[in-house]
Amino acid sequence: MIRKAEETDLPAIVQLLADDQLGSQRESAVAPLDPAYNLAFAQMNQQKGNDLYVATKGDKIVGCMQLTFITGLSRKGMTRMQIEGVRVSKENRSAGFGKMMMEYAIDLAKSSQCGLIQLTTDKKREDAHRFYEGLGFESSHLGMKLDLLKS
Amino acid sequence: MIRKAEETDLPAIVQLLADDQLGSQRESAVAPLDPAYNLAFAQMNQQKGNDLYVATKGDKIVGCMQLTFITGLSRKGMTRMQIEGVRVSKENRSAGFGKMMMEYAIDLAKSSQCGLIQLTTDKKREDAHRFYEGLGFESSHLGMKLDLLKS
Repeated sequence: MIRKAEETDLPAIVQLLADDQLGSQRESAVAPLDPAYNLAFAQMNQQKGNDLYVATKGDKIVGCMQLTFITGLSRKGMTRMQIEGVRVSKENRSAGFGKMMMEYAIDLAKSSQCGLIQLTTDKKREDAHRFYEGLGFESSHLGMKLDLLKS
Repeated sequence: MIRKAEETDLPAIVQLLADDQLGSQRESAVAPLDPAYNLAFAQMNQQKGNDLYVATKGDKIVGCMQLTFITGLSRKGMTRMQIEGVRVSKENRSAGFGKMMMEYAIDLAKSSQCGLIQLTTDKKREDAHRFYEGLGFESSHLGMKLDLLKS
């Protein structure tokens, strides 16, 4: 099942974000949860069209993703869906949850009249590239990042 | 000068979007302006933190960019700035307007406590890659797109 995240889901979601090749250095999943995560979740709830979703198996959260709708002028005023932070828990990988989440996102984008779905994946995540290409994504762009916390 | 765009700027902005290697097939800049652009602009104004900016030279619009703030859980609840649709008019290229716009965006991101600025550029836009790398961006990601209007 896929549904919008609630505040009580945050510890499980942060656990997913931390339990990852790159995320382990970036997140702090120890209890009690860093209030920065609650603050960010409250801010997301105030921003229309910027939502966190979870995939569940029984009462366990096994995956998460963030979906943001961005309207712009280009391509005749097209709205695009942007996907960030897609994660599936290690013990539930290759069980179809990632595909199920992406299909949910694609259906939602279509029913919301989006013209495009976009995401960036770290060049090191080769499994992810194959996964998204299998869903029809084209690796047509470079994703460039400027880290403001480094400088 | 750089300022937020107003509705009366739309024809000039769409002209910029259309006058481009890839944009010419995507946009419709003939007068009267396609109302889809006005509709998209109104939608952007309703979405907090999703703004269109213009660079001006005298009373002429010579550049545009779209800046979107996206709060998420990852990296301890970081807010990122996303940049889309950066354009400078052909007759004003290499005159520093692009750099001026990006420096404006970087300053705004920093003063808004963003941890990261991100953008994607088409793999074909080699000049753009060098331009962004010159500003400190790292080409660390692949930008993947799923065109929903094709299928």
